[in-house]
Amino acid sequence: MAKVLTKRKENYSQWYNDLVIKADLAENSAVRGCMVIKPYGFSIWEKMQAALDKMFKETGHSNAYFPLFIPKSFFSREASHVEGFAKECAVVTHYRLKNDPNGKGIIVDEDAKLEEELIVRPTSETIIWNTYKGWIQSYRDLPILCNQWANVVRWEMRTRLFLRTTEFLWQEGHTAHATKNEALEETIKMLNVYSEFAEKWMALPVIKGTKTESERFAGAIDTYSIEALMQDGKALQSGTSHFLGQNFAKAFDVKFANKEGKLDYVWASSWGVSTRLMGALIMAHSDDNGLVLPPKLAPFQVVIVPIYKNAEQLKKISEAVDAIIHKLKAKGISVKYDDRDTQKPGWKFAEYELKGVPVRLALGARDLENNTIELARRDTLEKNTYPQKNIESRIETLLDDIQNNIYNKAFKFREENTYKVDTYEEFKEIINNKGGFVLAHWDGTTETEQKIKAETKATIRCILLDNEKEEGKCIYSGKPSKQRVLFAKAY
Amino acid sequence: MAKVLTKRKENYSQWYNDLVIKADLAENSAVRGCMVIKPYGFSIWEKMQAALDKMFKETGHSNAYFPLFIPKSFFSREASHVEGFAKECAVVTHYRLKNDPNGKGIIVDEDAKLEEELIVRPTSETIIWNTYKGWIQSYRDLPILCNQWANVVRWEMRTRLFLRTTEFLWQEGHTAHATKNEALEETIKMLNVYSEFAEKWMALPVIKGTKTESERFAGAIDTYSIEALMQDGKALQSGTSHFLGQNFAKAFDVKFANKEGKLDYVWASSWGVSTRLMGALIMAHSDDNGLVLPPKLAPFQVVIVPIYKNAEQLKKISEAVDAIIHKLKAKGISVKYDDRDTQKPGWKFAEYELKGVPVRLALGARDLENNTIELARRDTLEKNTYPQKNIESRIETLLDDIQNNIYNKAFKFREENTYKVDTYEEFKEIINNKGGFVLAHWDGTTETEQKIKAETKATIRCILLDNEKEEGKCIYSGKPSKQRVLFAKAY
Repeated sequence: MAKVLTKRKENYSQWYNDLVIKADLAENSAVRGCMVIKPYGFSIWEKMQAALDKMFKETGHSNAYFPLFIPKSFFSREASHVEGFAKECAVVTHYRLKNDPNGKGIIVDEDAKLEEELIVRPTSETIIWNTYKGWIQSYRDLPILCNQWANVVRWEMRTRLFLRTTEFLWQEGHTAHATKNEALEETIKMLNVYSEFAEKWMALPVIKGTKTESERFAGAIDTYSIEALMQDGKALQSGTSHFLGQNFAKAFDVKFANKEGKLDYVWASSWGVSTRLMGALIMAHSDDNGLVLPPKLAPFQVVIVPIYKNAEQLKKISEAVDAIIHKLKAKGISVKYDDRDTQKPGWKFAEYELKGVPVRLALGARDLENNTIELARRDTLEKNTYPQKNIESRIETLLDDIQNNIYNKAFKFREENTYKVDTYEEFKEIINNKGGFVLAHWDGTTETEQKIKAETKATIRCILLDNEKEEGKCIYSGKPSKQRVLFAKAY
Repeated sequence: MAKVLTKRKENYSQWYNDLVIKADLAENSAVRGCMVIKPYGFSIWEKMQAALDKMFKETGHSNAYFPLFIPKSFFSREASHVEGFAKECAVVTHYRLKNDPNGKGIIVDEDAKLEEELIVRPTSETIIWNTYKGWIQSYRDLPILCNQWANVVRWEMRTRLFLRTTEFLWQEGHTAHATKNEALEETIKMLNVYSEFAEKWMALPVIKGTKTESERFAGAIDTYSIEALMQDGKALQSGTSHFLGQNFAKAFDVKFANKEGKLDYVWASSWGVSTRLMGALIMAHSDDNGLVLPPKLAPFQVVIVPIYKNAEQLKKISEAVDAIIHKLKAKGISVKYDDRDTQKPGWKFAEYELKGVPVRLALGARDLENNTIELARRDTLEKNTYPQKNIESRIETLLDDIQNNIYNKAFKFREENTYKVDTYEEFKEIINNKGGFVLAHWDGTTETEQKIKAETKATIRCILLDNEKEEGKCIYSGKPSKQRVLFAKAY
């Protein structure tokens, strides 16, 4: 049992790092801020990708691929975009190396300097809208509903595996529309796709809302996000969908002839989720024993461990196990049989607990005699012995139960850690000592928002979409407010 | 009919470029040498990826993800690797831009110069073996069977869509083994996966063989490849699998304790196919009317075009079409119904011919009366009218026929364009005037190989794996030779 984790209560941040490393999800690489996503971690990401990709296609989107590099000048075209994205980024200045004439390895060939530097994409609005210019002439060419799965680079000074890395994987949708309404509808539609994915697949309850001006995507008219609450009381922005208006169409001169033959700029949306979702998944559900994975995203849903004294016993156990595996697979349940002789059952139990496998089965000599099997569920750590007969049906139902239970637990946690607050004193008390989501009145100014942030580190996560209108006074300035907004410290 | 292609006989190269652009597969981007893969082209690539990914997983491999950037010094570690890969590449030297103090947009911030430059990966052996060092201590940690789907960058001076681009998409498998034999078996296993994929999915007959020393992957002990013949008589290397020996383990000091507790360096393989396969797919099968896609990789296998005079007719036709679509989908056949009123049937026919849709159905007023439907197959351009009843079964069989027919046609073409040659005169005659594969004796020296290349532009594509041993004399030097090797001009 060498792989013990730091306890969440002792040091939540250390617990998270331990877990990511010890559960074989990811690790830091030799390149500062860039991670290696290990096979076990990547297979969770693949399941996320597959589910999202299906949802994108069902809503009419197609995948495409745009260049990794963006000419530097493209960033200057959209005034606010350049401020947000062109600063901390990887800059390609040369296209050749050569042998060091002094024999010390290889050096940059100064003769191979690019006329214009290339930026490794931090996001692709500019290169994509420059491309769309060639695709769009008339309303008949609209809408364009493209998505791309890609790597992006944002030079981060402080990085954390999955949560904030210099290179990360994501998808970015970029759509072009003939009307403002269509683009707005698309923006909301994809926000809803994200929230449905978070809730149904990740078992992660999220709050939908719009960002304040200062938290908006650089170049957007409006940014919508889904916000989730982690177990340490901090919020994690889990996906964003942007209404870009005609900003990028104007920056890249993309006009279309409408049905009346009149030229107008094209309307746009963009939306993305990233490997950051892996961080949300890990932090929302896991415990001091390790990962807790929702069955819908687990690389394998069931693991079977044989408990045997000799090869003869193992052979008989394996026969019984084979029959069970066959029935599980017939129900579409993924299963791994770990009959390695290099590790003891106890080691395996701890390993699969750490890796969050939803259901663990163990089968020993006595089970063979009794036609029974031991079943342990990861979410509650409950353990019971059942007849082997129909165990596959029991597990099928159980996997649904676990999926729901994980969601309900996270939902209950959020409910218990969401506060309505009417004074700044209360606000600070909760933000500093308890954490969680705080619903409070705000006067609507960036000034107040920044002061609260400076004093408490809490930010406005979003203005809830289905917010009830409620007159009140800003907790900070005392000025009138028409609705509460959602505050929290955030990742 | 604005989208007419250049004829293959007139200008094969122009035909290819026309086709890639006009069939909406890909286009050049604003970044020199980097392409945009358009939705229609990307959906073919996605189908390739899905089929390959399944084959990789069925042979025990897992996906993972490694950094985009590689520290410059890593390339110098493996002596021959640096010669092959560290030269023409994108070099990241800075990590920040800033506003130009003269107000002219943004410039590179010289204060943000990297201590060590980062190379955008041209291939990932170095960063991956540096990572594997941390994963491998004992034989229990082996084998490691990882694959990654990624973008890579090789700075190319002359680029062509799909065939040779500065950035391209690929997969790269990187495996680590305890014994030489295991690594060799893996190398061959993956070569066989590639050839099976090429033949069964792409309908592309390929020849398997080993590369000569001068054509070997930089850092490999042996490179295996699959070679396909294009319609212009040029070869296209379609996939490579490398036996790396202990070269990278030595370069990155990756040792393991074997069962006897003795330390040894780890054995390695790597293997990859790329978006270049798109070029092979296009060039192998397509004709002067456009793409010809094997049904297994077509974004949609059937397109249905209604032929109508008014809305009432369209409504009735659509009802009949809906029933057919339903039955096709039940058989797992992908289908698109194009009832757009913005284009005429003739335009649509040409469009789907250009895009290589394997089967086209057309349904008009007379068909409604007669319960018939017109069916056109793309590969032979044959057109017939059939009863609507059981059309789905007819199409199911037909799709298999088309897949086989395309393969057989390409196979026949290759057979007809493969020559056994015993004199250099004959050799030059064929290489210069006919093209194709030429089997000829070679003395086994790099010197002769280079001279033939310089004089004829033909290279040794491979030494066939299942080569019959046959004594002979080198066509160039007259020295003794034990087997014929495969020559061709190549992409």
